[in-house]
Amino acid sequence: MIRVDLNCDMGESYGVYSLGNDTELLLSITSANIACGYHAGDPAVMRATVRQAIEKGVAIGAHPGLPDLAGFGRRRMDITPEEAYDMVTYQVGALMAFAIQEGSGLQHVKPHGALYNMAAASRPLADAIASAINRLDPTLILYGLAGSELIKAGEAAGLRTASEVFADRAYQEDGSLTPRNMPNAIITELEDSIAQVIRMVKERTIVTMTGKMIPIQADTICIHGDGVNAASFARTLRARLEVEGVNVQAFF
Amino acid sequence: MIRVDLNCDMGESYGVYSLGNDTELLLSITSANIACGYHAGDPAVMRATVRQAIEKGVAIGAHPGLPDLAGFGRRRMDITPEEAYDMVTYQVGALMAFAIQEGSGLQHVKPHGALYNMAAASRPLADAIASAINRLDPTLILYGLAGSELIKAGEAAGLRTASEVFADRAYQEDGSLTPRNMPNAIITELEDSIAQVIRMVKERTIVTMTGKMIPIQADTICIHGDGVNAASFARTLRARLEVEGVNVQAFF
Amino acid sequence: MIRVDLNCDMGESYGVYSLGNDTELLLSITSANIACGYHAGDPAVMRATVRQAIEKGVAIGAHPGLPDLAGFGRRRMDITPEEAYDMVTYQVGALMAFAIQEGSGLQHVKPHGALYNMAAASRPLADAIASAINRLDPTLILYGLAGSELIKAGEAAGLRTASEVFADRAYQEDGSLTPRNMPNAIITELEDSIAQVIRMVKERTIVTMTGKMIPIQADTICIHGDGVNAASFARTLRARLEVEGVNVQAFF
Amino acid sequence: MIRVDLNCDMGESYGVYSLGNDTELLLSITSANIACGYHAGDPAVMRATVRQAIEKGVAIGAHPGLPDLAGFGRRRMDITPEEAYDMVTYQVGALMAFAIQEGSGLQHVKPHGALYNMAAASRPLADAIASAINRLDPTLILYGLAGSELIKAGEAAGLRTASEVFADRAYQEDGSLTPRNMPNAIITELEDSIAQVIRMVKERTIVTMTGKMIPIQADTICIHGDGVNAASFARTLRARLEVEGVNVQAFF
Repeated sequence: MIRVDLNCDMGESYGVYSLGNDTELLLSITSANIACGYHAGDPAVMRATVRQAIEKGVAIGAHPGLPDLAGFGRRRMDITPEEAYDMVTYQVGALMAFAIQEGSGLQHVKPHGALYNMAAASRPLADAIASAINRLDPTLILYGLAGSELIKAGEAAGLRTASEVFADRAYQEDGSLTPRNMPNAIITELEDSIAQVIRMVKERTIVTMTGKMIPIQADTICIHGDGVNAASFARTLRARLEVEGVNVQAFF
Repeated sequence: MIRVDLNCDMGESYGVYSLGNDTELLLSITSANIACGYHAGDPAVMRATVRQAIEKGVAIGAHPGLPDLAGFGRRRMDITPEEAYDMVTYQVGALMAFAIQEGSGLQHVKPHGALYNMAAASRPLADAIASAINRLDPTLILYGLAGSELIKAGEAAGLRTASEVFADRAYQEDGSLTPRNMPNAIITELEDSIAQVIRMVKERTIVTMTGKMIPIQADTICIHGDGVNAASFARTLRARLEVEGVNVQAFF
Repeated sequence: MIRVDLNCDMGESYGVYSLGNDTELLLSITSANIACGYHAGDPAVMRATVRQAIEKGVAIGAHPGLPDLAGFGRRRMDITPEEAYDMVTYQVGALMAFAIQEGSGLQHVKPHGALYNMAAASRPLADAIASAINRLDPTLILYGLAGSELIKAGEAAGLRTASEVFADRAYQEDGSLTPRNMPNAIITELEDSIAQVIRMVKERTIVTMTGKMIPIQADTICIHGDGVNAASFARTLRARLEVEGVNVQAFF
Repeated sequence: MIRVDLNCDMGESYGVYSLGNDTELLLSITSANIACGYHAGDPAVMRATVRQAIEKGVAIGAHPGLPDLAGFGRRRMDITPEEAYDMVTYQVGALMAFAIQEGSGLQHVKPHGALYNMAAASRPLADAIASAINRLDPTLILYGLAGSELIKAGEAAGLRTASEVFADRAYQEDGSLTPRNMPNAIITELEDSIAQVIRMVKERTIVTMTGKMIPIQADTICIHGDGVNAASFARTLRARLEVEGVNVQAFF
């Protein structure tokens, strides 16, 4: 049976600052990437989000980022692979503690923002991240951009990986995402997004911006939590996938 | 056989900033309290310190503090028990990850600085810390000031505890430490310190400032790592304890 | 002519995190207390808020807080007067730079949250803050709780001060605010708030919770920016004050 | 008369962490670049360093860096020119406040570490920094790598600039520094360093690694404060320059 996971970034509030619509999104997604205090999130938010995810039966993952709260982990920083190893270990361990306390555990790790993008392109960074996860808990699943260095590094390290695709992003012929600053990089029509997802999941192909059809691995779909209609989009997408006979569920 | 543990704060360097003399102190102590990034320490320092401790056969403990790097966790902050619960969980989890990666685990948790002092006096804070540890890993040993609320909270939570005493601090009749700003609060003579420790460990008593002898529980002795002669003092103290027939070892 | 200033905390967003309704509130208030990056705010937010305030003709003040973004500067920290001196200097200087760049300057300084409350009660802290401001720019106006140590310290230092009162807080017989955890501490009825303000401004008296009338100095009224109806309350209050013949304006 | 300035980074301690040998170095240098709390330094250190510099008659400059205490501002971050503008303004303003309180003012601004290097190569970043300084105080002198975009941006903005050269770094034919990871990039012989400086200052030329002589502008010489012999090197260099008839002094 065809199956897919829906993941979304969660727990990105901080102190008095509230961000995202976790409560509603948790009703539709199957895996939650929970911020670990570097780019967003704080210990109280982490605990609360872990509890909410468990309550809703959503799998828990760590979402480690760069140490840049002011930039939300979106600014590239010139870190060494060893620094990546250490900061991923630190953050995943911190979240793991909350999961253990609540009688659960982590399913996966998905790097955030600039760390995700850097690890998609740099094999040394990707290897460091894969190694940190592997040495911490080799049953953790590594989420990364489909076709990226991060997925390759995870496989090389013997980790289970989940290739991630995007509902609302146009793809280029080499399988990479069209940069956001290029025309038509973002798919704004709901039906176009849903059609792209269904094709990726059921047929393992995608139609690129140039009209060419290329193969793609789509284990998990990234739901952006920050749009106004994020929760509604997640609900609709999940319903449509289920109508198509796709089994929407986490990897456990 | 009479036994005692020697513990010392470790891993308090940060980025380019170097602090303490961990390498030499690790040769004499039996348990290392490793900073977890809040009051001191960073992920690279944590990993390096965990590795060094394992190499030297020194037991590893987490040393969580208040989120105050600028103040080295020494300034009291008006945190709630729930905040204490969350920040201890976060920090202990982070260190645990490094210990797991290196094929080891944590022996204990000892709060740092103002958090230690606040938890010694406030039962709600102490209960929150004990509960965080207990829910994370009930085999962890909670280190606290002998006779303090933290020790009581640990016992009430069913945790194994280690009552900590100080070699270089004068005690008052109620068993509490003489505040540092009072005359003769600090014992400066090496032989006086050693004599006090040997008495505490072998006879379970201490002579207070007023000359009264009172009972004290001395499971572990705090070695201050920041003095110029810290490493030499630790070496001497350990040798003298062994001459006295005391078994100097961690709790594992 | 009777006059009063309406002040409100501003610029408390941070990175991707948005807080408050500055744009609308700036239409009704006369003085903006702009966060300086310690408890809230970041350099981009500071610049943008300074620009907006200038555009709307609202006087600019620095709103220094404790170094505790996670706690929004609301958790008391055990800082020394010297630390208060230094952190106020740092933050006021930072904001001053943005004001200078935009062709303006600072009118006032109002400490935030726990720092405000601590300085209201501790004369040494209050003196340190007053001294920092005085040595930096003796024309700056120090805002503090009416009748507090901070106001006294400002006067002793030769600074111009502004005694602050609250529209929505019940007062006790000694002129202090009724603690928030006591019954009826918060005035929830709009008309009661407005009546209290008008009485404070025009008659320089207040009716305490026990019904006693006491004198009060009301140079500036604190508008809480975080309520849902904050902007609407500010608008209404200002209109009603003007109908009463009160001149609502900053101190310049 | 030929003159040159000797500058050194100062005030890079933080909380309990001590770094550098400011007290001794201040005896030989003429301009101090004082860290502003982003990559190093804290308000107490800033105040103390400002006081020390004034006492020793050393000119004060701001040394703003990237917001990366853990990486000491040495890791490149992908910031926008607007972010550079804001973070420079914030930090320079903060230091300016301490200088004003002590009855002095700032002579110059020198970006730190990765920000310095990024601004040397990127004109948009350099322009943003020059603009921030110019709008804050057009009499401030902008220090930058000789021949860099930062110097050009400063000149274009109408600022006074100081072209910086290095005593211990080998230069390439295009006037740029030989990257540290290349052989012979660092000049380790004291006499070679001194000879290079004297030639740069007196003859306005430098002999590159390939033996070619090229022109160079040497207004100020960077003294690295972190070497073991930093203070001794500074003392020797200054003495030798004076023997050569060079007037060693700041720009005021």
